[in-house]
Amino acid sequence: MASAAGVSTAAVSQAFNGTGRLSEATRRRILDTAAGLGWSPSATATALRSARTRTLALVVRRPTDVLGADPHFSELITGIEGELAPRGYGLLLHLVGDVAEESALYERLAAESRVDGAVLTDARADDPRPPLLRRLGLPAVLLGSPDGGCEVPTVGLGEQGAGIREAVAHLLALGHRRIAYVTGPAELLHTRLRGSVVLAELAAAGLSPSAVLHTDFTEGAAVRATDELLALPERPTAVVYANDSMAVCGIGAAQRAGLRVPDDLSVVGYDDLPLGRWLHPRLTTVDQQVQRVGAAAARVLLAQCGEDVPPAPLEGRPRLVVRDSTARAARPGTLPSL
Amino acid sequence: MASAAGVSTAAVSQAFNGTGRLSEATRRRILDTAAGLGWSPSATATALRSARTRTLALVVRRPTDVLGADPHFSELITGIEGELAPRGYGLLLHLVGDVAEESALYERLAAESRVDGAVLTDARADDPRPPLLRRLGLPAVLLGSPDGGCEVPTVGLGEQGAGIREAVAHLLALGHRRIAYVTGPAELLHTRLRGSVVLAELAAAGLSPSAVLHTDFTEGAAVRATDELLALPERPTAVVYANDSMAVCGIGAAQRAGLRVPDDLSVVGYDDLPLGRWLHPRLTTVDQQVQRVGAAAARVLLAQCGEDVPPAPLEGRPRLVVRDSTARAARPGTLPSL
Repeated sequence: MASAAGVSTAAVSQAFNGTGRLSEATRRRILDTAAGLGWSPSATATALRSARTRTLALVVRRPTDVLGADPHFSELITGIEGELAPRGYGLLLHLVGDVAEESALYERLAAESRVDGAVLTDARADDPRPPLLRRLGLPAVLLGSPDGGCEVPTVGLGEQGAGIREAVAHLLALGHRRIAYVTGPAELLHTRLRGSVVLAELAAAGLSPSAVLHTDFTEGAAVRATDELLALPERPTAVVYANDSMAVCGIGAAQRAGLRVPDDLSVVGYDDLPLGRWLHPRLTTVDQQVQRVGAAAARVLLAQCGEDVPPAPLEGRPRLVVRDSTARAARPGTLPSL
Repeated sequence: MASAAGVSTAAVSQAFNGTGRLSEATRRRILDTAAGLGWSPSATATALRSARTRTLALVVRRPTDVLGADPHFSELITGIEGELAPRGYGLLLHLVGDVAEESALYERLAAESRVDGAVLTDARADDPRPPLLRRLGLPAVLLGSPDGGCEVPTVGLGEQGAGIREAVAHLLALGHRRIAYVTGPAELLHTRLRGSVVLAELAAAGLSPSAVLHTDFTEGAAVRATDELLALPERPTAVVYANDSMAVCGIGAAQRAGLRVPDDLSVVGYDDLPLGRWLHPRLTTVDQQVQRVGAAAARVLLAQCGEDVPPAPLEGRPRLVVRDSTARAARPGTLPSL
């Protein structure tokens, strides 16, 4: 087959697998030659299949509408795909409603040999997934703090609380004393962790938060939470949001209410999405390097799947990125009444 | 097996497949009973596999960093997943660099029976994918104008040019005469189509565009294009962007340059992403119902895959949504100089 097309066997493999650097003309010639010879790659492919699906799973436990609303997942997928695409791997995306559905899905994917491994997101207390995937013999990585004690490798930046601690310290240093926190669902580990850091950092300054409002991460919830905060008798002068898209919604809601950001209200986001750099005012946020964490998780999984991926340990921690949406707290008497 | 667990065979199937409405306790009991009996679903699963993978492919031909930057794909995936998730289907996402790589990937996915069908995006002239997928016997739908003549079903709103035509007409009615267009790569069909509509609509009013700038859809390119437009000797009073994220970047760039939106510069986006409703000013944009189109494409494919999906024809056309980022054109003498 390779000699009939006048190419190397490696080129034939590349033509069928879409790897390598073949020109379209060469690829076409190889595939046409194969068709002329009645040759099909499916026998080889079938033999390979039991060993490799070249597919990793990403199961997201969110209402479908949040996937669209929260660019965090686009960033994560982008980071993962950046490692998968050059190696010809795909990402199997499943949306599920709850933990039971997610567990049943892993059992099916393992039983049907559909994926080579899985990236687990949203670590939570008493997480049933690591022991399940271990039992199923399915390689997995859990995104989260690399604190150990988990039955699958964990990939994430160290000192997960460091970024939000810097954010609160930054606001305190700017003179803010009425600080509110708009966060995610209470059952998520990172929500709990960051919430406790906010409380501890404020307590160390002798303060309590103006309010801690839980949301489902949707933009509508962010606007409602902001409206609620702005209606407080002791209106906060600064709000920290659990992600950038909620922070952008919060800035919009505050501006519509007649407040200037950052003069009348300082706003901090979380994630450092590209959008925050282009908005006016540019968003102060916490860079937790979602793409880089996604890429690192993909590399750990690829290595477990037998790919030749040199180890590249993930170093660093979440860091505050100070831009233009935070400023010195206005003195109480100078704030506009709404 | 079902009688041992004291449940119906349908419940057993649901427990393994993660479908239906079983409680976690029931599901656990079924799986434990199965484990006790040494029963595994893999034999059945293997038999089923040749017929059904319950996986659809979405191959995106973009640099990986644009996937993160452009929420359009999140919206599309959200729409598709909204139909797939309740039926236990997954979406296999592949990023590829060019058409040759995309074609080779379909050949591999078909040869290895990895997917039941594929959603094709970014229709282009002389598109090699519809004949390829037909030859491979892989069900497919192409997102785009339902104009017929294609070898696979096409799913999209009718009158694809209607929304952008309304946008230009809206700006003309507001008195704008210096209108610029910041668009995507020239080889994409929708970029060409909408560009020709902009030119035709302006020509009918005896005008030419201030400029037509092509970008790769990234936010950085949107900012550079905006800066270029603002530096023109005859600065435009209105800019139409080919998507909402570029429009948001454009608003930020204009505001940073000292212009008020919409007083000094009107801005129109495209896609009607959720974000545009929460920004200040709220974004005037074209609603092309990305989620609904994604859902409709998924339904057409699911029906081709033998799922019981009632037909729900996609009606309507792209429509302008007028919000607060467009206003009457300032008289030339009153515009701030930068």
